Amino acid sequence: MNDEIEVYVRFSETDMLGHVNNTSYFLYFEEARTKFFKKVHPNRDSSFGFILASIKCDFLKQAYGDESLKISTNISKIGTKSFHMQHILVNNQDEKIAQASAVIVCFNYEEQQSVAIPAQLRENLEAWLASKVRCSKEGNNASRNDSSTSWRSD
Amino acid sequence: MNDEIEVYVRFSETDMLGHVNNTSYFLYFEEARTKFFKKVHPNRDSSFGFILASIKCDFLKQAYGDESLKISTNISKIGTKSFHMQHILVNNQDEKIAQASAVIVCFNYEEQQSVAIPAQLRENLEAWLASKVRCSKEGNNASRNDSSTSWRSD
Amino acid sequence: MNDEIEVYVRFSETDMLGHVNNTSYFLYFEEARTKFFKKVHPNRDSSFGFILASIKCDFLKQAYGDESLKISTNISKIGTKSFHMQHILVNNQDEKIAQASAVIVCFNYEEQQSVAIPAQLRENLEAWLASKVRCSKEGNNASRNDSSTSWRSD
Amino acid sequence: MNDEIEVYVRFSETDMLGHVNNTSYFLYFEEARTKFFKKVHPNRDSSFGFILASIKCDFLKQAYGDESLKISTNISKIGTKSFHMQHILVNNQDEKIAQASAVIVCFNYEEQQSVAIPAQLRENLEAWLASKVRCSKEGNNASRNDSSTSWRSD
Repeated sequence: MNDEIEVYVRFSETDMLGHVNNTSYFLYFEEARTKFFKKVHPNRDSSFGFILASIKCDFLKQAYGDESLKISTNISKIGTKSFHMQHILVNNQDEKIAQASAVIVCFNYEEQQSVAIPAQLRENLEAWLASKVRCSKEGNNASRNDSSTSWRSD
Repeated sequence: MNDEIEVYVRFSETDMLGHVNNTSYFLYFEEARTKFFKKVHPNRDSSFGFILASIKCDFLKQAYGDESLKISTNISKIGTKSFHMQHILVNNQDEKIAQASAVIVCFNYEEQQSVAIPAQLRENLEAWLASKVRCSKEGNNASRNDSSTSWRSD
Repeated sequence: MNDEIEVYVRFSETDMLGHVNNTSYFLYFEEARTKFFKKVHPNRDSSFGFILASIKCDFLKQAYGDESLKISTNISKIGTKSFHMQHILVNNQDEKIAQASAVIVCFNYEEQQSVAIPAQLRENLEAWLASKVRCSKEGNNASRNDSSTSWRSD
Repeated sequence: MNDEIEVYVRFSETDMLGHVNNTSYFLYFEEARTKFFKKVHPNRDSSFGFILASIKCDFLKQAYGDESLKISTNISKIGTKSFHMQHILVNNQDEKIAQASAVIVCFNYEEQQSVAIPAQLRENLEAWLASKVRCSKEGNNASRNDSSTSWRSD
């Protein structure tokens, strides 16, 4: 099971190289996270927060202004106080544009410290983790498409 | 040897949690990269470009509107066609706010493929790589400061 | 007749005052313009462009993160080489958040100068101008709602 | 007397037309306002705020990535509860890129209503208003440069 949202690429999100600027991808991932959090933890206490501890993005293909992109999100790991999310960004031709993984820490703002993942949230996250099988299969497909990426680090 | 720039945190770069939004950090890292590239590869051919293949950011402490932040940049690895950059973001109290590592691929836009790092650029990058010793020492200091980060993933 | 789009307010578009930052409104207006231009001038020559010569925004009420906002756009004036657009931004409670007016100039990039509005485009713009009657009525309604704006210049 | 700041144009602030995106100018004006407010009202009460009621920007020339731009700010009008600011944005060749005027309302967040300009602030603002003479002279010079703007509305 993947959570999927669609984003429209604004003109302001492109840059002088004619493509979507690298910083814009993080706007899309944030929107995906916000909407995902509302689903898996709908009635949260105001003292509870999700802190982004880390995010990594691999840029695989260029995206362009006025495109509609799809972001699918799932959970790849659940710890005691934190969990890992994965985002895959694809364009309308189903080409994988970017993939990201983020580490989220459950935080209590009143106590100013990280806290254990609440029971109901954990249960909800596990439902998205279960999706891992289907996702990694998708991941394989996507990886094959990656072979067309023309930049590759060594 | 570290390349250092200073950035001013704009009001627009904060969010409703009262701190600098996660997406804003990537604006700062991009500014650091742009200015670094001008130093290490000043007279580049218009067909030559630096492609950001990947970037990872660890968020360690909050930053706030109207602050001045310092970003120090150095090179952690040099491959055949790509190299790795590291950024460390500190505030005025010398607290480490975030650290990032980025993979940069040398790209020829005319041929639309990655190319070997040009000789002069490689030589320049190596000067910043030599700085690694001092940097990792700084990294240790910074790591000690990190112990005060109140969120930590597991 | 109004052209209407819906935008989702991203977390990154808010600021430390807890509301949508003033600069974010211009992102929304740009998206409205881009989509409007595709409708009224769908098959445009690559040498032809719409230049934003001027934009004015009145901020009437605060908007917040995670809201869905509606932007309605119409044409208020058509000149020889330029035309005026109006945007009204409302929230889900139908409160007017902001209104903007923009001056757009038709521009030929090859000749690097402004050009007369192409005939077909002019005809299309006039269809949206005709909407003026209904719009100004809406405008009046909206103005009544404005009386609740708690800041007012003198 | 003009308040002047310098901003660096980030790559992310450009767009696929190869120039600075229209939305980026408002980032620069906001930075200019923030810094100006700190000067003219340094020790403000947390309940006191400056609300941007309106802003208008005329785009006169293109600006480009990696440029350094100067923004000069002064006060053009002082009312009872609000005042008007003017920003002029110039590039390194002293060409006027854009000019903006903003209406600022003094606001009390606790009472949630606009309030009279505090006495000390008013005095400070008047010092910048006095600068009007020199500024409008500069304005004339700048206007002459404007004659080279290749888009002009009608």
